[in-house]
Amino acid sequence: MQAARTMSLTLADIQAAATRIAPHIHRTPVLTSATLDELCGGHLFFKCENFQKIGAFKARGAANAVFSLTAAEATRGVVTHSSGNHAAALARAARLRGIAAHIVMPSDAPQSKIASVRRNGGLITFCEPNVAARESACARLVAETGGRLIHPYNDYAVMAGQGTATLELLAQVPNLDVVIAPVGGGGLLCGTAVAAKGLRPGIRVIAAEPSGADDAARSFAAGRIIPLESPATVADGLRTSLGEKNFPLIQRHVDAVETASEEAIVAAMRRIWEVLKIIIEPSCAVPYAAILEGKIPVACLRVGLILTGGNVDLDALPWLKK
Amino acid sequence: MQAARTMSLTLADIQAAATRIAPHIHRTPVLTSATLDELCGGHLFFKCENFQKIGAFKARGAANAVFSLTAAEATRGVVTHSSGNHAAALARAARLRGIAAHIVMPSDAPQSKIASVRRNGGLITFCEPNVAARESACARLVAETGGRLIHPYNDYAVMAGQGTATLELLAQVPNLDVVIAPVGGGGLLCGTAVAAKGLRPGIRVIAAEPSGADDAARSFAAGRIIPLESPATVADGLRTSLGEKNFPLIQRHVDAVETASEEAIVAAMRRIWEVLKIIIEPSCAVPYAAILEGKIPVACLRVGLILTGGNVDLDALPWLKK
Repeated sequence: MQAARTMSLTLADIQAAATRIAPHIHRTPVLTSATLDELCGGHLFFKCENFQKIGAFKARGAANAVFSLTAAEATRGVVTHSSGNHAAALARAARLRGIAAHIVMPSDAPQSKIASVRRNGGLITFCEPNVAARESACARLVAETGGRLIHPYNDYAVMAGQGTATLELLAQVPNLDVVIAPVGGGGLLCGTAVAAKGLRPGIRVIAAEPSGADDAARSFAAGRIIPLESPATVADGLRTSLGEKNFPLIQRHVDAVETASEEAIVAAMRRIWEVLKIIIEPSCAVPYAAILEGKIPVACLRVGLILTGGNVDLDALPWLKK
Repeated sequence: MQAARTMSLTLADIQAAATRIAPHIHRTPVLTSATLDELCGGHLFFKCENFQKIGAFKARGAANAVFSLTAAEATRGVVTHSSGNHAAALARAARLRGIAAHIVMPSDAPQSKIASVRRNGGLITFCEPNVAARESACARLVAETGGRLIHPYNDYAVMAGQGTATLELLAQVPNLDVVIAPVGGGGLLCGTAVAAKGLRPGIRVIAAEPSGADDAARSFAAGRIIPLESPATVADGLRTSLGEKNFPLIQRHVDAVETASEEAIVAAMRRIWEVLKIIIEPSCAVPYAAILEGKIPVACLRVGLILTGGNVDLDALPWLKK
């Protein structure tokens, strides 16, 4: 199935994405915990994208973007820049479609991320670790190959793919009152918000972000994108600033953006490890951290939280750092 | 439902246990991984008792023992000694039945285990950390309260409860060729073996244990119980030696006992964390460690592994130790 390129994001786009990517992704489970519910007085439903292919929800958006290409477009491959989960996700999706994936990665990217891209057959171009070097490397690859640039979040097909996690969540858990997603560039958040509001207009959609990378909260309050110069947070997946395609959708479909402190993020991450017995990245602890800090009322409510990924360096856990 | 006290362990006992404890335990999921399957050439099915109530399969055996008591027996409560998961499991089961649980714990038990027993309403008696002190404390409590001693593994009702995990596993995964369980005292192993052989006589049941605590392998080879004086293994749940009720059942129903090195146990634990994104104790990495070391052939076979629990000290992970 090939999709016409959309200039925005609708529920129908997300539903089409779900059909398109179904053969290529896991339908992930939803976990609950009586212990965590007692502690907060609400009912928490954790959508476990840490169990997704390549260990993160990014498998969804990349698969939708790659399998949305026409046959002619696909032959020229895809290009992206990422030091994280999107890189492995795009490499995997391209491999499944049998096309080339050119991945620009900073020269200081973690070995585990490089290995994950290589394992999935991605063709890596290393660049200096700064924005100018990254963008010029990407532009050169696009010019040389004619491949489509698949941005990690500022891309409607990617957003539509990320939104499929929330389609599943709403099918798995009836009568949710609130959905909370972390926000970095806004790809997951836009997909989450459009899916949730489309299916269930009365639901509240809340974004959670680290107070050390609070560009979404500032932008949401100011009504214009305010990028952050130097984000500082343990939640490495959320250091990016909002995309220009993402922000208008967030303004329209998201009810609130709440922040969480670094201390709460680490405590939330650790508690989820201890109680749910699952490995999650610091980034996906942020929604629960905001609950722990009282930023998001959950008493007597049914609350969905997207756990975005589980790719963690087990030698450098944040509670063990000096 | 009250059970007559049995003097052995049969499939019918385990089936009755499953009905009895169903309201009190989780039906845990089975996880698979294309990555782990590719690495070993077999099909691995991980039964996730780390997601069980109190974070371990011990919730099953304790619940069966407590809910098997007659009303008259129950009024006098239960007694046990344990520094680990059985203590919390028995406290929880007793709380659910509304009776007292007297738990003898060594004075050097980890704070997290003590907290878990207290959270479940267990009444703790501390003793010196040696066998004589533990046994005399237990005997005194039994004499004073008239409560039933519920041994962590040398008890048929406990074994029957532990076997319910394998009933579920065989219902969740058709056509398993092999089931592997770790062995410490033998409670889980006996339940696993009797359930598996009862339902599927052609299945192979293999026990895995640390080479640093290989009393089961030695006993199995010698045809008599050979207890270990000073077990040395990171798999703290498997340092106990076989129970006298457990050994004859193991001789009869288990096909082989294989050992794994400490290095392989830590590597297996870490790989399961990294690939499956779940938290497991060192003890339940032992079956996969034995596979990694080539002790258990799995090529082209469908292999069930019982992941026994997920209660880990996140400040003291074995790969971070000096």
